[in-house]
Amino acid sequence: MATTASKESAENNPGLSESPDEATKGYIVQQTMYRIKDPKASLDFYSRVLGMTLLKRLDFPDSKFSLYFVGYEDSAEAPKDPIERVRWTFRRKATIELTHNWGTETDPEFKGYHNGNADPRGYGHIGISVDDTYRACERFEKLGVEFVKKPDDGSMKGLAFIKDPDGYWIEIFDAGRIGGIVAGSA
Amino acid sequence: MATTASKESAENNPGLSESPDEATKGYIVQQTMYRIKDPKASLDFYSRVLGMTLLKRLDFPDSKFSLYFVGYEDSAEAPKDPIERVRWTFRRKATIELTHNWGTETDPEFKGYHNGNADPRGYGHIGISVDDTYRACERFEKLGVEFVKKPDDGSMKGLAFIKDPDGYWIEIFDAGRIGGIVAGSA
Repeated sequence: MATTASKESAENNPGLSESPDEATKGYIVQQTMYRIKDPKASLDFYSRVLGMTLLKRLDFPDSKFSLYFVGYEDSAEAPKDPIERVRWTFRRKATIELTHNWGTETDPEFKGYHNGNADPRGYGHIGISVDDTYRACERFEKLGVEFVKKPDDGSMKGLAFIKDPDGYWIEIFDAGRIGGIVAGSA
Repeated sequence: MATTASKESAENNPGLSESPDEATKGYIVQQTMYRIKDPKASLDFYSRVLGMTLLKRLDFPDSKFSLYFVGYEDSAEAPKDPIERVRWTFRRKATIELTHNWGTETDPEFKGYHNGNADPRGYGHIGISVDDTYRACERFEKLGVEFVKKPDDGSMKGLAFIKDPDGYWIEIFDAGRIGGIVAGSA
């Protein structure tokens, strides 16, 4: 009986290696970094609106910047010792590293950051898997969040894009619904 | 006995909410998306060099693009059914979504994507937590990977930045060593 190779097999994807090198065992995608204008606005958004916690803050006074690592972790579990807390943070998957170059929040000349979705394009967005896209978006609307795409806009019903305070895009979807949304492309 | 609020407390971070709204329970950072020129080059890099697997590919012929979700997961665990595999993928944390707009790989006019670290700045990088920065970087060097910063370049010894085929930056560090590297900033 012949079996068909999956769409994700090496046979169907030039360049793909199917057996990860042992040397890469234990590697994790730990962070996605982008620059922010104002930590007060971003911390409010990522904690109050999105429900993340502040895992670690690092300050670099000589170079005048700070890093805020946020993510979906119980920060009550974080070690008390600051250095141990750094190590704990850098072992968490999927954190967001917000880089604040000091002074941008009050600089009238500062033009803001580029979100990658207009020319020159490159970076696109982060995506958050939620329990229910519609329920999540109703809450975001009540909280005054800016939308790029509401769940029922366009042809892809049931997924949304919102903006963070710097204008970076964040996709909102739920894993149950997404299967149906992209069924024709799977 | 007085206790000192941690550097990460709301008291020390204007804007921060310390108790995530119940409505956000179960949310995960599922993806970081950026655009790529050539899936063959990117799949080779993310699988052979970085050790990720291809979790799901989605093709959109009408709009002429494909999405490649890669990450540190055992793809042998992925469901056989394509739709179930979509749902499985969208429940994984910390995946990278590579967007390929068809044709860029052979278009002599295509100028490449913007990595966010030159003007206009915004997005910075993803970061991979490895077992040992030096060991990982020796292997990357042997594999011909391009470096932005080798582990011993500059003042931050023990962390590195490499480039993917499109020039996006990827930070390489290990959680043990990072504690010492940023000790003065913690």
